[in-house]
Amino acid sequence: MGFFKILKKDKNTNARLGLIKADKVSIDTPVFMPVGTKATVKAMTVDQLYEMGCKIILGNLYHLYLQPGIDVIKKAGGIHNFMNWKNNILTDSGGFQVFSLGDIRVVKEDGVEFKSIIDGSYHFFTPENVVKMQAQIGSDIMMALDECIPYTEDINRTRKAAKRTLDWADKSLKIKKKLNTSSKLFGIVQGGFNKGARKFCAESISAMDFDGIAIGGLSVGENRNITMEILEHTVNFLDKTKPLYFMGLGDPVGLLDAIANGVDMFDCVLPTRISRNGSAFTGEGKINIKNSRFKFDFNPLDLNCNCYTCKNYSRAYLRHLYKSKEILSSMLLSIHNIYFLFNLINKAKNSIKNGKFREFLSVFKNNYKKS
Amino acid sequence: MGFFKILKKDKNTNARLGLIKADKVSIDTPVFMPVGTKATVKAMTVDQLYEMGCKIILGNLYHLYLQPGIDVIKKAGGIHNFMNWKNNILTDSGGFQVFSLGDIRVVKEDGVEFKSIIDGSYHFFTPENVVKMQAQIGSDIMMALDECIPYTEDINRTRKAAKRTLDWADKSLKIKKKLNTSSKLFGIVQGGFNKGARKFCAESISAMDFDGIAIGGLSVGENRNITMEILEHTVNFLDKTKPLYFMGLGDPVGLLDAIANGVDMFDCVLPTRISRNGSAFTGEGKINIKNSRFKFDFNPLDLNCNCYTCKNYSRAYLRHLYKSKEILSSMLLSIHNIYFLFNLINKAKNSIKNGKFREFLSVFKNNYKKS
Repeated sequence: MGFFKILKKDKNTNARLGLIKADKVSIDTPVFMPVGTKATVKAMTVDQLYEMGCKIILGNLYHLYLQPGIDVIKKAGGIHNFMNWKNNILTDSGGFQVFSLGDIRVVKEDGVEFKSIIDGSYHFFTPENVVKMQAQIGSDIMMALDECIPYTEDINRTRKAAKRTLDWADKSLKIKKKLNTSSKLFGIVQGGFNKGARKFCAESISAMDFDGIAIGGLSVGENRNITMEILEHTVNFLDKTKPLYFMGLGDPVGLLDAIANGVDMFDCVLPTRISRNGSAFTGEGKINIKNSRFKFDFNPLDLNCNCYTCKNYSRAYLRHLYKSKEILSSMLLSIHNIYFLFNLINKAKNSIKNGKFREFLSVFKNNYKKS
Repeated sequence: MGFFKILKKDKNTNARLGLIKADKVSIDTPVFMPVGTKATVKAMTVDQLYEMGCKIILGNLYHLYLQPGIDVIKKAGGIHNFMNWKNNILTDSGGFQVFSLGDIRVVKEDGVEFKSIIDGSYHFFTPENVVKMQAQIGSDIMMALDECIPYTEDINRTRKAAKRTLDWADKSLKIKKKLNTSSKLFGIVQGGFNKGARKFCAESISAMDFDGIAIGGLSVGENRNITMEILEHTVNFLDKTKPLYFMGLGDPVGLLDAIANGVDMFDCVLPTRISRNGSAFTGEGKINIKNSRFKFDFNPLDLNCNCYTCKNYSRAYLRHLYKSKEILSSMLLSIHNIYFLFNLINKAKNSIKNGKFREFLSVFKNNYKKS
């Protein structure tokens, strides 16, 4: 088989089951990829990730470039050796930081100049050197450099950024071919919230020789209805024989809605970030463990969850840990929240297999709204 | 057998091997007890502790009383259920907080009035209620309330605190008998740095019906030579058929020196605290992982260590985690530092078994000084 195979399509929605033949281990899709920006999924051990069936995590080239530096990771024998992770790693190129670090970077025709958040030094990221560096550290799936823009950008800036992203996409493919690397490369669709620009980007990226297609520039502050409208519109013009990756989406309902739109891959800092703030997903909605109603609540976070945390710890204990500022609080909540998304996607996959995805989606949304 | 059995005495020192028949599981001594002040050994899971053979950890009544509160732990079915720990728990009484929270407590004849560090409310700890509360939460080994004084205390205050501690010890035993609990109770020897007061306290506590004897009030800021001089002096007057516990000692050389003086049990926040500051024990001395010399060092923390961290991670990666302020840094260093002390004590025990403890002590000290 090739890199990606569609195993089953849902009759009622655009949802689908697939298999990505990635370098380290194959990945069933849809898949949620936990974020390990700085070569660690925050507050989790790799064994905890293996145990819940995690086949792929993310790393971020921009952050790894600044600390520990590409030279350190190369000398370690690559990112997998460095962080002791044997499954796949997808690396983001730094394109998202074009958006999130808006005040300390300058976008130019041939790349992005960043000012280091560590020591103020300047660093120039180009479509070429980000692919080179991702290949050097042994990324399994590399991302092209893109220009991610804010929700509020006007149409001229939106078109300009889209055109630049396509130009960089082209350059990424060219350098990748020269490198003769086994790393896969995904292109990124931008185009902001303009349907014309999105269509143009989607068709252009689809026409290029990428191994997969990412939808970028969504979930950047806009209303969720708009996210889904632009997603649906964009997917229409994508090459659906390739794996489709929604960058930066990680809330339970959002994941299911995007799966219904045909998305295969997701990543987001959300599940681990809310863990450090004391929040947990449950089938009935998100709860915050510091709430005083949990003081004497000796139930698990979610009665239907089989994660390590829910099998062994009560809400009362987790509340105590959070209130005591104990590191174990972040550790146990991260395990739960990542497991919750994995389990949710597994249930979604089963429902697609059994032709009952639409029902599953509807029941989940009804229950999730309760809280 | 009774609660404590001496299995072997070293010929050249006062070191000994013993067995404590504790409630949940028997404990080979000497033993280092990791500190879980607030019902968690900081940054570690209970499984990581089981895996390295941990049979007993500490909790602190004072902190647990304030958060989550004794009522919560009682309703959880005791401290073991609450924190999901199946082995033994020794709880400190709050006596150390008499010392460490010197500015927010008042010592009276019948107990200590603490001002809460959480909400400023006042709480009165007595010899009687600390034993009651420790029994209520299901402590396996309870500590009597004592008055721990600073190194700089004058002789009059020292004698007064020692006398009060003995008075409270007596009251602790009386209330314990009334409670008909299966929890064991240890008395604490105070007496500051005055040999007369130490002798008086040691003999008095030894004459009482405690299950074990703790040596308190040492390692409170004094020079290490003085610690060991007072320790040696104190042990002379103790009932050595009981387990002897040095409160608050956790550096490798200190542990071995105290073992040579006949001490059976230890606890200290040191190994987990230094972990959060980026430090690690090695056979050659303590290192701090943030040092730039480790940037390209792909060796484990300690070449001779078999802990999870040393088997899987390099100094370069641990340095990166620490510099990136990643929680995994504290997690992996805590595993290593606790394991290091366990392994050190296991080696010490083997050397006592083989009649070579003095040699082991000497070799270890020589190597440890190198760094």
